[in-house]
Amino acid sequence: MTPNTPDATIPTPSSPAPDVVRCAYMELVVTDLKRSRDFYVDVLGLVVTTEDENAIYLRSMEEFIHHNLVLRQGDAAAVAAFSYRVRSPEEVDKAEAYYKELGSPVKRAKNGFVTGIGDSVRVQDPLGFPYEFFYDVEHVERLAWRYDLYSPGALVRLDHFNQVTPDVPKAVKYMEDLGFRVTEDIQDAEGTTYAAWMRRKPTVHDTAMTGGAGPRMHHVAFATHEKHNILAICDKLGALRLSDHIERGPGRHGVSNAFYLYLRDPDGHRVEIYTQDYYTGDPDNPVVTWDVHDNQRRDWWGNPVVPSWYTEASTVLDLEGNPMPTVERSETDEMDVTIGADGFSYTRKGDEETMPEWKQGEYKLGHQL
Amino acid sequence: MTPNTPDATIPTPSSPAPDVVRCAYMELVVTDLKRSRDFYVDVLGLVVTTEDENAIYLRSMEEFIHHNLVLRQGDAAAVAAFSYRVRSPEEVDKAEAYYKELGSPVKRAKNGFVTGIGDSVRVQDPLGFPYEFFYDVEHVERLAWRYDLYSPGALVRLDHFNQVTPDVPKAVKYMEDLGFRVTEDIQDAEGTTYAAWMRRKPTVHDTAMTGGAGPRMHHVAFATHEKHNILAICDKLGALRLSDHIERGPGRHGVSNAFYLYLRDPDGHRVEIYTQDYYTGDPDNPVVTWDVHDNQRRDWWGNPVVPSWYTEASTVLDLEGNPMPTVERSETDEMDVTIGADGFSYTRKGDEETMPEWKQGEYKLGHQL
Amino acid sequence: MTPNTPDATIPTPSSPAPDVVRCAYMELVVTDLKRSRDFYVDVLGLVVTTEDENAIYLRSMEEFIHHNLVLRQGDAAAVAAFSYRVRSPEEVDKAEAYYKELGSPVKRAKNGFVTGIGDSVRVQDPLGFPYEFFYDVEHVERLAWRYDLYSPGALVRLDHFNQVTPDVPKAVKYMEDLGFRVTEDIQDAEGTTYAAWMRRKPTVHDTAMTGGAGPRMHHVAFATHEKHNILAICDKLGALRLSDHIERGPGRHGVSNAFYLYLRDPDGHRVEIYTQDYYTGDPDNPVVTWDVHDNQRRDWWGNPVVPSWYTEASTVLDLEGNPMPTVERSETDEMDVTIGADGFSYTRKGDEETMPEWKQGEYKLGHQL
Amino acid sequence: MTPNTPDATIPTPSSPAPDVVRCAYMELVVTDLKRSRDFYVDVLGLVVTTEDENAIYLRSMEEFIHHNLVLRQGDAAAVAAFSYRVRSPEEVDKAEAYYKELGSPVKRAKNGFVTGIGDSVRVQDPLGFPYEFFYDVEHVERLAWRYDLYSPGALVRLDHFNQVTPDVPKAVKYMEDLGFRVTEDIQDAEGTTYAAWMRRKPTVHDTAMTGGAGPRMHHVAFATHEKHNILAICDKLGALRLSDHIERGPGRHGVSNAFYLYLRDPDGHRVEIYTQDYYTGDPDNPVVTWDVHDNQRRDWWGNPVVPSWYTEASTVLDLEGNPMPTVERSETDEMDVTIGADGFSYTRKGDEETMPEWKQGEYKLGHQL
Repeated sequence: MTPNTPDATIPTPSSPAPDVVRCAYMELVVTDLKRSRDFYVDVLGLVVTTEDENAIYLRSMEEFIHHNLVLRQGDAAAVAAFSYRVRSPEEVDKAEAYYKELGSPVKRAKNGFVTGIGDSVRVQDPLGFPYEFFYDVEHVERLAWRYDLYSPGALVRLDHFNQVTPDVPKAVKYMEDLGFRVTEDIQDAEGTTYAAWMRRKPTVHDTAMTGGAGPRMHHVAFATHEKHNILAICDKLGALRLSDHIERGPGRHGVSNAFYLYLRDPDGHRVEIYTQDYYTGDPDNPVVTWDVHDNQRRDWWGNPVVPSWYTEASTVLDLEGNPMPTVERSETDEMDVTIGADGFSYTRKGDEETMPEWKQGEYKLGHQL
Repeated sequence: MTPNTPDATIPTPSSPAPDVVRCAYMELVVTDLKRSRDFYVDVLGLVVTTEDENAIYLRSMEEFIHHNLVLRQGDAAAVAAFSYRVRSPEEVDKAEAYYKELGSPVKRAKNGFVTGIGDSVRVQDPLGFPYEFFYDVEHVERLAWRYDLYSPGALVRLDHFNQVTPDVPKAVKYMEDLGFRVTEDIQDAEGTTYAAWMRRKPTVHDTAMTGGAGPRMHHVAFATHEKHNILAICDKLGALRLSDHIERGPGRHGVSNAFYLYLRDPDGHRVEIYTQDYYTGDPDNPVVTWDVHDNQRRDWWGNPVVPSWYTEASTVLDLEGNPMPTVERSETDEMDVTIGADGFSYTRKGDEETMPEWKQGEYKLGHQL
Repeated sequence: MTPNTPDATIPTPSSPAPDVVRCAYMELVVTDLKRSRDFYVDVLGLVVTTEDENAIYLRSMEEFIHHNLVLRQGDAAAVAAFSYRVRSPEEVDKAEAYYKELGSPVKRAKNGFVTGIGDSVRVQDPLGFPYEFFYDVEHVERLAWRYDLYSPGALVRLDHFNQVTPDVPKAVKYMEDLGFRVTEDIQDAEGTTYAAWMRRKPTVHDTAMTGGAGPRMHHVAFATHEKHNILAICDKLGALRLSDHIERGPGRHGVSNAFYLYLRDPDGHRVEIYTQDYYTGDPDNPVVTWDVHDNQRRDWWGNPVVPSWYTEASTVLDLEGNPMPTVERSETDEMDVTIGADGFSYTRKGDEETMPEWKQGEYKLGHQL
Repeated sequence: MTPNTPDATIPTPSSPAPDVVRCAYMELVVTDLKRSRDFYVDVLGLVVTTEDENAIYLRSMEEFIHHNLVLRQGDAAAVAAFSYRVRSPEEVDKAEAYYKELGSPVKRAKNGFVTGIGDSVRVQDPLGFPYEFFYDVEHVERLAWRYDLYSPGALVRLDHFNQVTPDVPKAVKYMEDLGFRVTEDIQDAEGTTYAAWMRRKPTVHDTAMTGGAGPRMHHVAFATHEKHNILAICDKLGALRLSDHIERGPGRHGVSNAFYLYLRDPDGHRVEIYTQDYYTGDPDNPVVTWDVHDNQRRDWWGNPVVPSWYTEASTVLDLEGNPMPTVERSETDEMDVTIGADGFSYTRKGDEETMPEWKQGEYKLGHQL
């Protein structure tokens, strides 16, 4: 099986695509459940809906479905599922037929693959990712009004996934067939696409496709109400002497206009904390295309992106629970074209030469990375 | 024609309802365009897309369609249109057919009723409100990233309308036929409904129906990013010695869980500033029903609702530009059942007797209002 | 003894006044220690330094001295001490001599009157208030960096006291002799002073004198870092169905320019939560005088002051633990001159006649209070 | 003259030190007055008190003295004065006598050296810095309540200076003689001091001494009310495509516990934006000593300090307007001992070996800087 043949376009099925409502939860395999619990519950404050010795089911403060994150004990860190909610029970059938027509490995579980979720279908999609689709789910208390339970950095919603895949246009075409719409992307003047953001719910994304060796999981993102909530998470990590979990940020994204922070969990899974992107629900919502050399595209303040953010990502599993092999990206890498000997970035287009003297040292440093 | 016969149910048309995307703009008639401009542009910071001697077209910072608010010079303050965007040009046709079947007065303007909007239909709906439906609209710069233009209280989105109508269940049935879904409502133990919130986009509402003499416009609401933005608007009004434009708040709503402020514009039109309600886009999103006697339903902190907020609202116009007569509410009023000789409110259900001594004076005062 | 003879000026001692550093703590008598603990520790998040069956010693997050608040079990709610820290051990001697010369009742406790504090002097001052002065104090961990312990509404500093006394100019003269400086006050055109704010540390106040029957304690105030922290306290009170503890606010003060909230504890003791006044440490810091009729003086947004805020305050104790009798104010009351039949307030000076129509109902209501 | 002989202690004068109230303003020489005005007025929003073709006098929103910053046109970027306010006119005389006894170059200007300031003394202090002391100053409107003039990133106070000097203990001893108190410092186990923070007003500092080749000016700092104000400055710089003015941050300091951002002005002068340190006014305020190898001392979140922040600083002028030569630091440099081949930093003391795998790449990178 060759899940990521960059040169082969994924065909559009004749079966109708399932009507996806939103990204709903991710299932993570972690190597030390207790240590992961410390991180997601005690540090980040996600709420335990239920747990047993093998798995913990967590939700955010405004969620009413059973969970937004499953942590499952395993031998090697990985992602077992990117799970989407569909609009009705019938849409689960549509998903099954859709992926069968695509020739993807498909499994159906009438009682769900995990606690709290009913009839579901899991597929290994044409890009190699383990996607799940479900409608039936246990309702739990929406804690939105329970301000007695809020912490300074309370996570209120699951916002999006982010996936690494070698061929972004191929992935975009496949996701558009599945009913997703592009809201923003990063390109260069030669037409190479480095990343694309796609949505079902009317935010900037339910998932994004980031160019790189894949299939891998780049990050899962939770939303806070305000920016100070994100700063509070940083402050708390400092107080707990866990600041090395901060990989990048906090900062303002160019893409999405959201305020962000990237953390790494005890297994290295990347978690973004994110707030305040914009409404994208109109059918003619303008797509924003960023120049890959624009130094404000990923951080609006021009702060550098650490190399690990570009290069590291989580293994994803096939439907048998085996790690998916990855395929390298054949096009140029975003990191390479923006920093280092072969790359460049600008703050003001056409103004590369007029950088203030005091800044040039740092830029040269950037070039050495 | 008797637009608001409380005892008559509005029939469900056999024509399909138009697919409404979201509330898009309101057209207000104001009696002193210059003075209204001072308020909406200089004080609140809405952005002028275009203007002439008779009208001003305003938008919020994250908007990409031509406007969210039209101020039009006129002799008497009123509301000329509650305008919704639909998903495609064909949906405008559907709206026309739908309301014709309902027997409502309907007008079609292929070039739009206002600058910036194309093919539109306006109707006087069965509740007596001037509703507009359009798809075609001029795109303008989305100023989301233009932080050089932000003020401390920047308004970033149009969030919702709020309408006063005598018979809330009748209005809800009509709006559900139109494809809206109830997210929250206020009832009493006897089954009287005092208000209901309804949405198309996945927030708590695109419009709400508030029980009272109607048809009248209760308020139009704009969103800020964070709570401090709303406080900044209050601070600025104080600095300009315009604090008497603040009618109620700021505070936290029980209903919607949003942070809010109510202002009155120079004509008395009510404007809400609003931030941080929650995602409601799932098909089985739980409806929240509040007890009308719960003193935290309209202000989560128990702060009193001023009487004018209950009793005053803006006149709406028919399609000829004449003020619509209003019909009184026949059921009990929310204000009457919650304060005054015949009303009561509780902080803790069943705990009316154990109020701290220092608070009883104020509660008695409340009863005297 | 007649502690509050409004017509008698308090003489200036020839002894030097003690060098007061700041307000340091208040000792409150509460009638149900467990219930008060619930309020101050579980709801407001003050930190317990130590406690026993009769008393609880509490501090704020940035404090390094033993406590900022003592709750002591007693039969009747009262204030046992307003305690100030002085610059050195010798200044305690100065305080003792100073008040002895004034003829005030004075007690010295070489081991302190309460746990955690050493050599102290307590006096019943010429206005009738139980004042304490100490230098020696046990140091405890300053929790400023312990973000793992912060709640969304964390109280970080004791900010000030507020005292009710019948004759404000008399009180001001006495406090100036004690080395305090006036930063702001409220007066009318006839020269009546309604309240004055006075400081040692360079904020707007360490204590304020509010005109009314006294001696009584109006409130004790704690600071948060930001405004959203104060809103979070309101939200939490709502979630706990304790919103009736909110007496007034949140709002922006005119006087002090701070953002505020007034709560009442289970005994009715008033607690202010306060943030962001300004630096006042220069010797020629400009005094700000507010017109008592300026409707933005106490709330910059013009929101009404509830009557209980003007009329209710806590009993203070003499050095034997007996309630101090109060003396009525002989001058006009701020509440009476600003609302009701004999009062008036303006938003814009000279603009009383041009209030918008929609606002006049509320103002008439105000006049009826 | 050898202003910075690291081995020579600066003697304590027998003359009394002037009673310094606070840091009051800095005078900067800039090479393009128009361009500097764009930065400080149009971007940062400082208020112009007055200006002419050679100089601009700027103040922050809560200031009531004439200015906090003077920009003066000159040929080479430099600092002409670090100016402190003293408690009375007589204290200016004391300053003159004090520095004359120290043998420092001293100038007295009865009408002030700059507009808005009266009788002043300027000295070239024993460390080589141009220090000014004044009492007499023109009062201007304190704009604290003028919320109509606030920008999202409004600067409300001058907070502190920061100076680079080769021998920190020598500088501390000199400043303590001048009446300053140390609040925090950075040391290593061998007793080397890398930096010290010192205050007159009860914040963490009025000035700090940073070890390095000196005398040079490291930065001047302005305060905002809240953290989001600092983020708004970054957002605005991004919108103006001036993000390359951001040198470091935003972040949370370990030292001072404040939230911070470092900018570079068009001449490379470093400006810090700063908010929410803590009260330090008690005479026994605990000094906080940080281990130089603690990776959270300068950024509580462990984000790296860019090399330019350590190595670059502004030239200071002598009283004749000539650039002061600098003397190298003879002790180890903070940058060298914390990163690179000879340095190390830890997140958890004693836990250098257990860093997560995904983080080690970055740390190795750190070592290569």
